[in-house]
Amino acid sequence: MIGKIDHIGIAVKSLDEAVKYYENALGLKCEGIEEVADQKVKTAFFNVGGTHVELLEPTSADSPIAKYLEKNPRGGIHHVAFNSNDIIADLAKAKDAGVILLNETPKIGAHSKKIAFLHPKSTFGVLTEICQD
Amino acid sequence: MIGKIDHIGIAVKSLDEAVKYYENALGLKCEGIEEVADQKVKTAFFNVGGTHVELLEPTSADSPIAKYLEKNPRGGIHHVAFNSNDIIADLAKAKDAGVILLNETPKIGAHSKKIAFLHPKSTFGVLTEICQD
Repeated sequence: MIGKIDHIGIAVKSLDEAVKYYENALGLKCEGIEEVADQKVKTAFFNVGGTHVELLEPTSADSPIAKYLEKNPRGGIHHVAFNSNDIIADLAKAKDAGVILLNETPKIGAHSKKIAFLHPKSTFGVLTEICQD
Repeated sequence: MIGKIDHIGIAVKSLDEAVKYYENALGLKCEGIEEVADQKVKTAFFNVGGTHVELLEPTSADSPIAKYLEKNPRGGIHHVAFNSNDIIADLAKAKDAGVILLNETPKIGAHSKKIAFLHPKSTFGVLTEICQD
């Protein structure tokens, strides 16, 4: 079952510059930086009342985030992630409802979470992640 | 001070169809539908662990959401809203940090909240709302 919004993934060209904006303009505090080799991104996390803002800077030109930035040069909201207490059951429920799974079985993401993505074609344009701690 | 993510605003062509997806595929429960005349939208709310998913269907061709849907016909994540306990102070802080305010003073949004938007040009491409209950 989905219990909360885990994070919002935001694509940025420069993690350093964007971190400064979130800290100085919004008063949020960066909790840490982590590289996720599998996704070819460097991420910065901000805890905002239990939901995280996750900034994503590509580390390679063939990163999905690099492709997003080609279309959206300023950056933008890349995906939303829902936290589940049973990702296998929630993926099955989504599939039963006609959703296309980009990952039929979960893979390991930032913070060693189990993660899987749903195809935006089947989620009204929103790249949607389901994750489990 | 910003305490949590209040909601994620998601543009959709059809509220009815999108509500079905969030209910059936993700297991979320629609809390209600509200028309916000000022924004020319009809909204559906889902409470997900204290942060809301807010679906936005335009009620007029000159709604900002209608314009977003022209560029993103499938729909997509339109904005993120941060909940503040002092919107006046937080808008001043953002402005001091170089952010362009789309609303210099708050206006009234859904659920009678005080709301103001920050220009995506100055927020790394993310249309950002600050709101206060």
